[in-house]
Amino acid sequence: MKLYGERNPAPNPRRVRIFVAEKGIDLPEIRVELGKGEHKSPEHLKRNSLGQVPALELDDGRTLSESVSICRYLEALHPNPPLFGRDPYEIGAVDQWIRRTEMRLMQAAAMVWIHADPRTAAIIKQNRELGEANKPIYAQVCAFIDGELAGREFLATNDFTMADIILQTTVDFALFLDLPIPEGCANLKAWHERVSARPSAGANA
Amino acid sequence: MKLYGERNPAPNPRRVRIFVAEKGIDLPEIRVELGKGEHKSPEHLKRNSLGQVPALELDDGRTLSESVSICRYLEALHPNPPLFGRDPYEIGAVDQWIRRTEMRLMQAAAMVWIHADPRTAAIIKQNRELGEANKPIYAQVCAFIDGELAGREFLATNDFTMADIILQTTVDFALFLDLPIPEGCANLKAWHERVSARPSAGANA
Repeated sequence: MKLYGERNPAPNPRRVRIFVAEKGIDLPEIRVELGKGEHKSPEHLKRNSLGQVPALELDDGRTLSESVSICRYLEALHPNPPLFGRDPYEIGAVDQWIRRTEMRLMQAAAMVWIHADPRTAAIIKQNRELGEANKPIYAQVCAFIDGELAGREFLATNDFTMADIILQTTVDFALFLDLPIPEGCANLKAWHERVSARPSAGANA
Repeated sequence: MKLYGERNPAPNPRRVRIFVAEKGIDLPEIRVELGKGEHKSPEHLKRNSLGQVPALELDDGRTLSESVSICRYLEALHPNPPLFGRDPYEIGAVDQWIRRTEMRLMQAAAMVWIHADPRTAAIIKQNRELGEANKPIYAQVCAFIDGELAGREFLATNDFTMADIILQTTVDFALFLDLPIPEGCANLKAWHERVSARPSAGANA
């Protein structure tokens, strides 16, 4: 089994690396250099017809894409420690916070990256109004999550879960985009310090 | 246990209704009238701080939101028939197709609904350029999915799964927005006829 990924700050391959480090799984990763367009090569399009990373290639040749889907596959093979919840309610709660974080916070950060970042201006037809409009949205969603984190050590349950990995990789990617954790989000800042101190935070390709 | 939802064509509560019908679960649903703003009432904000439907309320008072997360909770309580995959690879594949359908196809349809539909123009500050730009994107993602459906009865595995429910509710919501299945998408059209013929397709609040 091989993982095809890319170095930090690419947020999606990093999600899988943190997950694998938390599980203690030995999974070799082959770098697909996005800067050289290797993700659009015929070899990689066979692994992922959308030309994205990460992609997992099994020993029998089957492939699987999407960061969270790869992690769900690995969770089914290596259930401990559980990172998608320990009982039915936790399974629902972890998924709920993965979705809210991805569809609201990561979505806002992605819109800033695509439509308002000078580093993508040369390769994407930007809608600057849309990109700029997502900067305050990013801050608003941070404030919502900050409120939900009050009194909680982790985002979805009493344990570190996949939901924390999604939030962690999103916040760190946003920092790379010069989108800080807003002033006043003390719960989110304290949470970020906690997850950043875990050994898995340093996993890189 | 009670579900708080809304009638068709609201796509997210419908996902849960189809899931529940396929499982044969008896789950009472209480209507939250979006047209009357009931989803933003103090009572409903206690169930879902984002003011959305569906929301599930357990007998012990705990709540769970997000259509797919509610279904994952119900799957853990009622494993048969499995609608999120039968083995580790299928679990990954179902999640992969849920994500691709939601983040690409449903995302495009949602942008059309929010930014280009005359029925939302009075209540939302629309970005018409963005809304119109998503109409051809919807058709392009349909064509991608059509290609992936070649030779397959269902989207993710050999069985009807949650991935089919997401695609079904998205395609039907898009039809409500006057976004048809594009000409030439014969696989997608045949798949749509198959899932529409299932008794669960008619489930309504």
